[in-house]
Amino acid sequence: TRNIELAVVAGDGIGTEVVDQGLAVLEAAVAGEDVAISTTPFELGAKRWHATGETLTDADLESIRAHDAILLGAIGDPTVPSGVLERGLLLKLRFALDHYVNLRPGKLYPGVTSPLADPGDVDFVVVREGTEGPYGGVGGAVRVGTPHEIATEVSVNTAFGVERVVRDAFARAQARPRQHLTLVHKHNVLVHAGHLWRRTVDAINAEFPDVTTDYLHVDAATIFLTTNPSRFDVIVTDNLFGDIITDQAAAITGGIGLAASGNINPDRTAPSMFEPVHGSAPDIAGQGKADPTATVLSVAMLLDHLGLSEASARVEAAVAADLVERGGRVRSTAEVGRDLAQRIAR
Amino acid sequence: TRNIELAVVAGDGIGTEVVDQGLAVLEAAVAGEDVAISTTPFELGAKRWHATGETLTDADLESIRAHDAILLGAIGDPTVPSGVLERGLLLKLRFALDHYVNLRPGKLYPGVTSPLADPGDVDFVVVREGTEGPYGGVGGAVRVGTPHEIATEVSVNTAFGVERVVRDAFARAQARPRQHLTLVHKHNVLVHAGHLWRRTVDAINAEFPDVTTDYLHVDAATIFLTTNPSRFDVIVTDNLFGDIITDQAAAITGGIGLAASGNINPDRTAPSMFEPVHGSAPDIAGQGKADPTATVLSVAMLLDHLGLSEASARVEAAVAADLVERGGRVRSTAEVGRDLAQRIAR
Ligand SMILES: CC(C)[C@H](C(=O)O)[C@@H](O)C(=O)O
Ligand SMILES: CC(C)[C@H](C(=O)O)[C@@H](O)C(=O)O
Repeated sequence: TRNIELAVVAGDGIGTEVVDQGLAVLEAAVAGEDVAISTTPFELGAKRWHATGETLTDADLESIRAHDAILLGAIGDPTVPSGVLERGLLLKLRFALDHYVNLRPGKLYPGVTSPLADPGDVDFVVVREGTEGPYGGVGGAVRVGTPHEIATEVSVNTAFGVERVVRDAFARAQARPRQHLTLVHKHNVLVHAGHLWRRTVDAINAEFPDVTTDYLHVDAATIFLTTNPSRFDVIVTDNLFGDIITDQAAAITGGIGLAASGNINPDRTAPSMFEPVHGSAPDIAGQGKADPTATVLSVAMLLDHLGLSEASARVEAAVAADLVERGGRVRSTAEVGRDLAQRIAR
Repeated sequence: TRNIELAVVAGDGIGTEVVDQGLAVLEAAVAGEDVAISTTPFELGAKRWHATGETLTDADLESIRAHDAILLGAIGDPTVPSGVLERGLLLKLRFALDHYVNLRPGKLYPGVTSPLADPGDVDFVVVREGTEGPYGGVGGAVRVGTPHEIATEVSVNTAFGVERVVRDAFARAQARPRQHLTLVHKHNVLVHAGHLWRRTVDAINAEFPDVTTDYLHVDAATIFLTTNPSRFDVIVTDNLFGDIITDQAAAITGGIGLAASGNINPDRTAPSMFEPVHGSAPDIAGQGKADPTATVLSVAMLLDHLGLSEASARVEAAVAADLVERGGRVRSTAEVGRDLAQRIAR
């Protein structure tokens, strides 16, 4: 029996609700396989911060590190100053565990209505860099609160960091039928970072001669995501541009209720972390209204990452089948989870 | 007779084609008013750079400065290294002439098909900061081309710069029926800059008590621009986020062929500059295929800025009427310009 140790960070708001269903589906997916999953809940997020002032201690981090993977619900709460939990917990996990590939599929499943009139066949994946760019917390402010305040934010990009994520993106493009990679950046303005990204894509292309590439400025990318999203196969981009375009990608493929993500450490030097793209949605928390589908699809990514590709396929197939029949039906968070688990069990 | 001195920077690619039509419509719009427009063409862009290595000399800048306004076509060409013309010419103009309000309407005109299935009544305006943020060219790179390369881009935000653009945005919101202002930023990650923007909006709100405000992270803004764009009235945001969301705004309101912009110096210490949001489109340059409508709508903004509000209204009305009848008809750049000028003359 293979033992899988899963760290569970349910987090804030609807996090607990969707994670509960994600775990139920996970259990259903591995039933019948020679796999035992044990979960360790981590009490992290707004409640913990209010009680102790802690976001993520070294002890938490070391304990999480000892797991095979992490399932995360959502982080963030209006009662906590903006940035405290995001940077002190969510981004700290991504950075400390070297999740340099933030993988976000943009797939329009049959049965799902896109807000686009004519979306076409949308099936791409965004490889968002996860450990650099303007997310590193470099920058600061002086004379805060005075008319002479100056605040800076520094985007840091290294050859090391760009090269590894670009190589990962090429490998993913190579494994897909269309074998196409689009770099999204803004090299006509952010010339230093942009040229590093562009040179890196050109250089790594030599290792993947079957993969064709093109380039879009991030502003133009938002246009094509509106007018012709089926043109995309694999997109590689920096941390901030990736944040922006993956929310847009979620919107055009049925909303953040369906958008999954994996924060992946491809070198497996630390556990990877799987989480829905959506946030903690305090406005609907505790009401059983949240759609757990994004979390369930993140569980499929988790299973795939752990090599349980058949279980992963079962989860994705259950979601796909559910989406076809879903229509306008309103179900609670638990009902969706139960239906998906039952589908897998059948 | 009022003399208006207009600097004309046609620029690269389709720039000349669309500017020609913009000028023809401008002439038609002021016919019958006691106004004489004289234009000074400035040979700036790829051709000049190839010939002389110059992008914008001090002499060019001083000469442009002596004008009442600037009409710009498009800047950028694949034969010039990325960033050279953008930063050395376009952004240099915006920065040197203190165009701190980059005004970009997002309006879906009747008759125009949106790629959104159900766009609703879209009529907002983005006030994009134009002289700060990550656009200032602060940053650099070391060990370029080696595995140890580090490239940085620094977003610089000052209380002075944020306050003036936020105040301008509030004034615009106050003057509109819905009196609503949305700040778009990413203050949960870019905490220093984000908190400066947020505090500034809260503080300036006291001067405009009728205006209601809300806040969206830039990633969430791309979702609402897809699912509910009619929720927006005035958006205020930084230079980079403004670049990104205004291209998305253009996409949902009929494409960049229709998207106008004004780079405005509200203090009138230097001429403001009006330009279509689109680029030089080298792929269709010289073929008479470019839609001059975005330039014509930019001319309407120019006229309004110069206090010629009736002429401005005539131009916008002509465009609106043309759009209703346009349908799928294919006309050349010159035909569209001629039709619009004729409509105004009638
Ligand atoms: C909550 C926030 C820090 C986070 C991010 O910006 O990465 C979120 O928007 C996401 O996309 O996972
Ligand atoms: C050409 C480029 C420098 C410019 C910008 O980023 O501002 C363009 O995209 C725009 O939006 O006017």
